[in-house]
This record gives sequence, structure tokens and C-alpha cells, in this order.
Amino acid sequence: MPESPIRKLVPYSEIAKKKGVKVYHLNIGQPDIKTPEVAMNAIKNLDFKVLEYSHSAGFESYRKKLSAYYTNHGLPIATEDIIITTGGSEALLFAMGSTMDAGDEIIIPEPFYANYNGFSTASGVKVVPVISTIEEGFALPPIADFEKLITPKTKAILICNPGNPTGYLYTKEEMQQLAELVKKHDLFLIADEVYREFTYDGDEHYSVMNIPGLEQHAIMIDSVSKRYSMCGARIGCIVSKNKELMTAAMKFAQARLSPPTFAQIASEAALDTPQSYFDEVISEYKERRDTLITELNQIDGVMVAKPKGAFYCIAKLPVKNADDFAQWLLESYDFNGETVMVAPAAGFYSTPGVGLDEVRIAYVLKKEDLIKSVRILKEALKVYPN
Amino acid sequence: MPESPIRKLVPYSEIAKKKGVKVYHLNIGQPDIKTPEVAMNAIKNLDFKVLEYSHSAGFESYRKKLSAYYTNHGLPIATEDIIITTGGSEALLFAMGSTMDAGDEIIIPEPFYANYNGFSTASGVKVVPVISTIEEGFALPPIADFEKLITPKTKAILICNPGNPTGYLYTKEEMQQLAELVKKHDLFLIADEVYREFTYDGDEHYSVMNIPGLEQHAIMIDSVSKRYSMCGARIGCIVSKNKELMTAAMKFAQARLSPPTFAQIASEAALDTPQSYFDEVISEYKERRDTLITELNQIDGVMVAKPKGAFYCIAKLPVKNADDFAQWLLESYDFNGETVMVAPAAGFYSTPGVGLDEVRIAYVLKKEDLIKSVRILKEALKVYPN
Repeated sequence: MPESPIRKLVPYSEIAKKKGVKVYHLNIGQPDIKTPEVAMNAIKNLDFKVLEYSHSAGFESYRKKLSAYYTNHGLPIATEDIIITTGGSEALLFAMGSTMDAGDEIIIPEPFYANYNGFSTASGVKVVPVISTIEEGFALPPIADFEKLITPKTKAILICNPGNPTGYLYTKEEMQQLAELVKKHDLFLIADEVYREFTYDGDEHYSVMNIPGLEQHAIMIDSVSKRYSMCGARIGCIVSKNKELMTAAMKFAQARLSPPTFAQIASEAALDTPQSYFDEVISEYKERRDTLITELNQIDGVMVAKPKGAFYCIAKLPVKNADDFAQWLLESYDFNGETVMVAPAAGFYSTPGVGLDEVRIAYVLKKEDLIKSVRILKEALKVYPN
Repeated sequence: MPESPIRKLVPYSEIAKKKGVKVYHLNIGQPDIKTPEVAMNAIKNLDFKVLEYSHSAGFESYRKKLSAYYTNHGLPIATEDIIITTGGSEALLFAMGSTMDAGDEIIIPEPFYANYNGFSTASGVKVVPVISTIEEGFALPPIADFEKLITPKTKAILICNPGNPTGYLYTKEEMQQLAELVKKHDLFLIADEVYREFTYDGDEHYSVMNIPGLEQHAIMIDSVSKRYSMCGARIGCIVSKNKELMTAAMKFAQARLSPPTFAQIASEAALDTPQSYFDEVISEYKERRDTLITELNQIDGVMVAKPKGAFYCIAKLPVKNADDFAQWLLESYDFNGETVMVAPAAGFYSTPGVGLDEVRIAYVLKKEDLIKSVRILKEALKVYPN
């Protein structure tokens, strides 16, 4: 299994910290946003005596309430279309395991969430990448680029929408193009929509579950991690109207017995989170994004694709090797006793040699810290021995 | 992935319940024992604001305390030998994924925990069974039986000790025989020891981690599910002193980010459970076991292997097909408005046609209910149209 590009940097961030240098973490997806009180209170007020297994598909009360949540948000999802999983991670494992055999292929637009590699390796599946570019703002590559990669072993196309690490939000037209393609070649379209609620410019998120006629091909991956700042819950779900697929996924679910009970209780309660919580969170992220993009654009030689959703962006830097630059920032640089940790983007590409001058920046820090971080990047680029 | 023999019976138990027939569940491993208060209180008294990811290997504080727990129990396990997992289930997946490639083989004495099939299928690994018999009390089959099955594709031997579904506790001599074999052929010995604390006759549990010289071959699987009646926590761990193996396992751990945060907090607190809790629980299970075995032995034609640990036993019944009998019990039989649900043992064998007249009985019910249940079995066998 490949080593994550971020993990490789961790020892260097330890070196910086040991020298007393403060490190701003632009590399991680752990939000600083408070978990809704309604979720935490549900846990504090537990009153059962035995911490039992739940149903392998998750508590029925939770699945029902989740179905109602989706329906209210315009997604026609019934209780039986949902299997609760241990994070979006397990939902992806179930999706791959249920649609593919060892040696099969999955097409993924790159750059993509690096752990897709791990789940593919664990499932014995081969990732076939399609390059999307910063020049095009990471829009969907031409459908012909996908089609020419389809072989008899291709079983699915996987997208992340809005995208980690790109922040790109697929348009309705792009989703429909993908839908036509998977129907034509009888593939599955797996959409990782865990950032669904994080869109900033009035653009509407168009879910894979909203495409008429795609019911037998559509698989949605979801999670409470980002929506409610509950990354540690490890609760997600796999959603599909394809009965045969869900029967296969249930066998994986039964083998591992059940998803975590405490966290399901918190996740069910989180569905009662008031809209004001989301309004505040989205407004906060929008300001952070705008701050980050404005600041980055003031650095000579930096190109950035303005994200439309999620809380990441990819920036092209005036360096030859962003991996080396990221390590140098931690190992050898500080600006007034402070430095930054960024994620080299090469790790989000499957094609060797692509994205070497790009980094992923997560805007999960407060505005003042984002401003300081970009200032550090700017000063660092002036003196970096490229 | 194969269908579980118990799952197939679930619709029939629904039929019985709809008819108003009370069903005693001898088929499940969900204990009725209370979770320690110290664990539940840790959850009720939480005071953080953001439910964050933990380290992918689990909270360091938990791993340290767990290392101390093992050391106190005579198992020389360091903090760095432990990766916290989402239940023993995930620990088994990590163990298989880290030791084997698709197409490799794992030897398992049968009957074995049916979900080992699921994890093997998910990992693309082939299960090679070795038959143990009720006549021998499910003792370790002769080592020659293992050795003749070893091929270049064999990478590990997996045992469950004490055993689910057999209740058998491997002796020190048996463990040493296995150790010699895996060293000779450079295999891993994976020991699922989640029932370690459940032994009843003063027999000492001999762990795979206690075998001198086996450090590079030994992998222990553990879980809080049974020890603390915390099945719904979904917290376990994979333990090994083999650094290369643990590095591989960490990549699987990193891909799925982290084990559940709430449940880790409860599991860490559970380590403070007073000894009196275990004394009561073990005493209760011992009485249940003795009651069950005594009652079963009074039925003509029933043979039972007295379990030395865990809370299951296998019973051979005077029927041709226990699967059919189990279904008939639910679908067509009641004794004064009550019936029982048992797990047909064929599902715990990988070799077709073996164990057809056996069932697994879990003694997780209180004594009165066990007595009633065996009475129902006895009456049912008198009238069952074999």
C-alpha cells in the first residue's frame, strides 16, 4: 500500500516543533468547528445498561431519520436504501467490495483523495486515473478521456463532489454526462458526497441520487464527519437503490457485525441540529476561503483554482518540487519563529510526475491564522533555494 | 461472500414471533451482562467541544494503559506493539491484509467463527480448513494434518482461543506445537483471543504472545466486546512485535483514518473495571455453562463437548440435518407457546457435509431460561419428523 505524502512529512513537523517553531497546519482536514451540542448531549444523557451491537445496517431509528433528512434536502432516499457504515471510509470499502473483484478497474479523476488508493489496494482493485487540470479549475475532464480508458475490467467511476483536494463542484451537466457514460457501459457511478453541504457561491449541489434513470448505477457515499464536525464519530453510510448491490454490501456489513453504537446515537441526534448552526459554519468557511484565495493571489507566481465547495484548494507554486519545498518549510525555515505545513499535491495524483509543483491547502484555520500562514508562504518562496 | 447460516433463520424467527411464540435465543453472542459503570460514566462525563479524529493507531493514552493491562496479565506487550481497531473484526481484516496477497491461503481449524469467511473473501484470501471433532472435544487436530496442507501460498494459521464456536481452550503444548510449525514454514500464527478472560476450570489461558521465540510470527487479535460486555463499542486491537507487519497494518489504519473516539474513551476507562466485576461475570458464566451441559446431557442421543472457555458449545443432535431442525423449531414448533433458536453448526465448517447434525448454543441467557430452552429442545426432539 502506498505511503501518504502527508505522513512522510510528519517527522519533519516534529523537528520544527522541537526547535520551538510554531507550525500552522494547512495540511489537514480536521475542522476546528464545534460539534453540535444536541449530538454531544445525546451521549451525555445515555441511560442504557448494556452497550449492545446495533443491527448490521445500523439502528433502524437512525436510518429512518436519515431518510427523512435526505428527503427534506431533495434526495429521494428510502430507509432501505441506506446502510450505516464506520465512516465514509468503510462505505467506500463496501462500495468497492460489492461492485468489483480483484483485478477489476475503477476510473477516478485526479487529483483525488489519497486514501482512495488505500481502499483500492485493500480491495485488490486497480485505480485508472483521468487527469483534471488547475488551468481548467479541475472541471470534469472531457468524457472522451474517460471513455477511452474503459476496458472489460472497468466496473465503476468514482468522483468526490465537492472535491477533496480540489474544492471543485460538478455541474448538473457534468453529472449528466457521467450518468450517460456509466449507463452506456453498464458501470457504477460512485459519488463521495461527504462535503455536500459545503458550497459557497449559491451553486446548487447536484447529487448522484438526483439523476433520473440512474437508480441502478448510482452509489452515494456520505459521512457525518464534516457536516457536524464529528470526524471522531466514524459514522457514514452507503446509499443505493440497486437491491443486488445493497445485498452484497450487507454481507460485508454483517461480517463486521455493526457500526459503533455510541456514535450512531450521537449522529441520530445530530440530525436535529438547527439550521442556524450550518448557516454560521458555511459563512465562516466562505470567509476563510475568500481570505485564503485573496491572500494567495497576491503572491507572485502562485496560481490557485478558486474552490466552490469543501474546504480545500490546490495551489500551483513557483517551485520545481513541492514535496521538497514542504519538507524544507518544516526542516529549515521559519519566519519569526513560525512556519506552515502543506500537503504536496503529487500524492493526490496517480499519474507519476504530475502535480509536482502543486500543494493542497485546507482552510480549517481561523482567518487570522490563514493570513499569517500565507504571509509565511510568501516570505518562504522569496528565499527558498529552488 | 457466503450467507451466514444464522441470518437465513432470521425470517423464521420473525414468523414464530408473529404467531405469538416466545423465542429463546441460543444463537447469538450478545451477552446480557451489564457494561462496567466506569466505562459508561466516562462517556456521560465528556467535556470536549469537537469530536476529533484520534491517531490512526488509537489514542496514545489508551494504548499505554492497555499495554500496562496486558503486562499485569503476564503478556509482554509494549505500547508500540498495539494498533487500536474498529472491533476485533477490523483487526482480523488488517491481519489478513498485512500478511497476505490475493490468492494466498490461510489454514483454520474448523468449526470456526463464520465471519472468518467474510474477512477472507474481503481480503481475497482462500480458507483451507482442518477438521477438529466433537469426539476429541475440538482439541487441536494433529500437527501433521496442518503440515500436509501447507503450500507456497500458505501465509498464516488462524486460531480462536478460547474458541467460538467450540469453547475449546488450547493447551500450552498445543500452542507450542503450532509455534514450531509456523516457525518451520515461516508463517504467521494469528490468535483471536477475544474470549481470553472467559475460562472456567482453573485452566490457564496460554496466549500467542507468551511463546518465547515466536515474536516475529505472532499476531494477537483482541476486543473489548466480550470482556466488558461492550459489543457496540466496536473497539479491538491488533498486537504484534513484528515491526514490518505493524508498518503494513498502520497503512490500512491510516487509510480509514481512526477508530471511533467515543468508544475509545469508554474502552480506556473500562480498564479501571474492578476485579469483582470479572469475578461475578465469570462465576455467572460458569454456572450457566454447568447448567447447560448438565441439562443437555440428560437428552437421549445428544453429545456435547464441555466448553473450557468462551460462552458457546457445540452439541451433536439426533437429527439428520440441524439446519432443517432449526428452521422447523421456529416455523412449525412450540412447547407451551415457546421455542428456541439455535445456530446450525454446518455454517461454522468450511468442508461441505461436515457438522450437519450439530448446532452451536450460546449460553448468554440466565439459568432459568437455559433450563427452559433445553427442556424445549428435549420435547421438540421427541416429535421432530426426522
